[in-house]
Amino acid sequence: MSDKSFHPPPRLLMGPGPSNVPQRVLDAGARPTIGHLDPAFMEFMDEVKDLLRWVFRTSNDLTMPVSGPGTAGMEACFANLLEPGDTALICRNGVFGQRMVEMVERIGAHAIVVDDEWGRAVDPQKVEDALAANPATKLLAFVHAETSTGAQSDGETLAALARAHGCLSLMDCVTSLGGIPVEIDAWGVDAAYSGTQKCLSAPPGLSPVTLSEAAVTRIRERRTPVQSWFMDFRLVMNYWGSEGRRSYHHTAPVNALYGLHESLLLLREEGLEAAWQRHATLSRVLRGRLEAIGLEYLVPVEERLPQLNTLRIPAAVDDAAGRLSLLQDHGIEIGAGLGPLAGLVWRIGLMGDSCRQSSVDRCADALSAVLKLPAEATA
Amino acid sequence: MSDKSFHPPPRLLMGPGPSNVPQRVLDAGARPTIGHLDPAFMEFMDEVKDLLRWVFRTSNDLTMPVSGPGTAGMEACFANLLEPGDTALICRNGVFGQRMVEMVERIGAHAIVVDDEWGRAVDPQKVEDALAANPATKLLAFVHAETSTGAQSDGETLAALARAHGCLSLMDCVTSLGGIPVEIDAWGVDAAYSGTQKCLSAPPGLSPVTLSEAAVTRIRERRTPVQSWFMDFRLVMNYWGSEGRRSYHHTAPVNALYGLHESLLLLREEGLEAAWQRHATLSRVLRGRLEAIGLEYLVPVEERLPQLNTLRIPAAVDDAAGRLSLLQDHGIEIGAGLGPLAGLVWRIGLMGDSCRQSSVDRCADALSAVLKLPAEATA
Repeated sequence: MSDKSFHPPPRLLMGPGPSNVPQRVLDAGARPTIGHLDPAFMEFMDEVKDLLRWVFRTSNDLTMPVSGPGTAGMEACFANLLEPGDTALICRNGVFGQRMVEMVERIGAHAIVVDDEWGRAVDPQKVEDALAANPATKLLAFVHAETSTGAQSDGETLAALARAHGCLSLMDCVTSLGGIPVEIDAWGVDAAYSGTQKCLSAPPGLSPVTLSEAAVTRIRERRTPVQSWFMDFRLVMNYWGSEGRRSYHHTAPVNALYGLHESLLLLREEGLEAAWQRHATLSRVLRGRLEAIGLEYLVPVEERLPQLNTLRIPAAVDDAAGRLSLLQDHGIEIGAGLGPLAGLVWRIGLMGDSCRQSSVDRCADALSAVLKLPAEATA
Repeated sequence: MSDKSFHPPPRLLMGPGPSNVPQRVLDAGARPTIGHLDPAFMEFMDEVKDLLRWVFRTSNDLTMPVSGPGTAGMEACFANLLEPGDTALICRNGVFGQRMVEMVERIGAHAIVVDDEWGRAVDPQKVEDALAANPATKLLAFVHAETSTGAQSDGETLAALARAHGCLSLMDCVTSLGGIPVEIDAWGVDAAYSGTQKCLSAPPGLSPVTLSEAAVTRIRERRTPVQSWFMDFRLVMNYWGSEGRRSYHHTAPVNALYGLHESLLLLREEGLEAAWQRHATLSRVLRGRLEAIGLEYLVPVEERLPQLNTLRIPAAVDDAAGRLSLLQDHGIEIGAGLGPLAGLVWRIGLMGDSCRQSSVDRCADALSAVLKLPAEATA
């Protein structure tokens, strides 16, 4: 057993997350731990909630970080919004849509799946048809920014369809929040969850969520308890809520919350629109560089996420060897393909603090070198 | 909305957790984030698992940190080890036993409860009688160190009773691990979970768990899926496991794991037995000081936890005002009573890095001052 402290190797993180975390955020997370019921921490929690409302563009009272990674926030939303026997319509155009289906089924609810090709946006027409055909649908769930493919779906249109058909909407914005417009209130999204390690550039481990009044009412009117005590928002809100005194539910991840708070301050200093613009602009610069070295995008241009660029791996290049060379020879992490895209694509993130001109240059230069390696070196 | 970075006030943490986190652990958590699938991180994960096996005193293959607080680890153990309709015997002598009952029932399993007075150890005779009367029991669950009362139960005897009656044992060692002997293999405990923010002195947010071969077999032979996708150990083990390649399940809380790793290194440098001795010795010193100022313990001396000292609040002293004075005038956090003990007791932690002679002195001096305040100042 090693008795040495761990010193991570230097990495430029250009995969599908985590992105590089600014020193200020790392330093904030290293401030002294205080108690999760300390009056000073209670005030701090209010600031975190205000900052999350700001970044989600919402006035939702129930806006808070779930004490677990994005996957925990995702499951907490389904577990609270659905009861056994309920019907949910799930848009599946990548890994995370499939994950939604699995979570819905484990809850004992019924999932109706609207499939779209991996690498394409969700087709609103198909969703409208499915909602019309299934009037008992209680929840429409979709992934705003599919991290497994780099496709962006139209959150505003999908949320409007849900409303028109009398059901709630749940939007996965793990990879979108902070990188492209996410407008919870303007779009009328009922529930959304995100992660900290993508365009917010905080360490992974927390999942900001926000729920509309209608979603909260749905939860209040449940006939059955949420299967998970840890994820039950009615209980969690006794701690995070604004009504009355804060009572203990679980011990909040104090230092991780320090980091999230600081990352949101950094985003406020830059401005949310400015951050969206930075992601849009630098993804165009990256595109020019990558197309110049012959790489092709998986996703049609009008459905592409600026913060996650999915490129087809040239036939002459070995997937794993290419990524290993990028990592070991150039210190750059990019992402592999998942599921049916494994071995076929690379996912290049331009998220949060990793979205810099210098990252674009280093990544394009390194890819250029890796693609020029003789076949035997990468095979 | 405040645009200022958060600087926590200086606190000596002598509540029921979190305890003070050493600077080395905070610094480790602030090292640069790397990818959760980086080969360097995979090696690091193996070190974390080895260190956890060391501190749990086990050779269990399935030993890993759950990516959430102790409550998530607790629920993950129940959710994986029980199926709907199963019977579990729960020992309830405080808040966390009650929490176990609620989790078991939400899973759709049946909880048989063995009650003991809050502030007392679990009575093995009652447990044996209940096991004999309920031969269908699949799991015996108990809290080794009841954080809500300061009572210590006999993990070795209870695990042996479970084994003798052909059922698995699940031990909550959130507050015991690192502070008093926890012997997973020697006692034959089948499953255990802990937290990082008590006697390990890392920030809150992770829950180390360990499962025996018998517990893993139980999970492998389930007829129904675990209700939570996030907590499903069979899926989590695709990422944390030792069999074959590590595949993505959720994004691990990279920086929190750096902190846990460093906290375990610190414990190794001290020695586990030396740490147990430190907690035992200083709790005796604290006891001398507290009894000298007239405070009385809730728990009989032979059932007391050294790391959590529960004292009756003198009749003349106001609970909330007394704790507020300790916090604001002396910078010391202690814990309030929970449930039926609210308003009646204070919980004084001597955990991990907070367990120092200097803490004992500061706390006893401050308590002495607070108890001498004129009644009108604390009422």
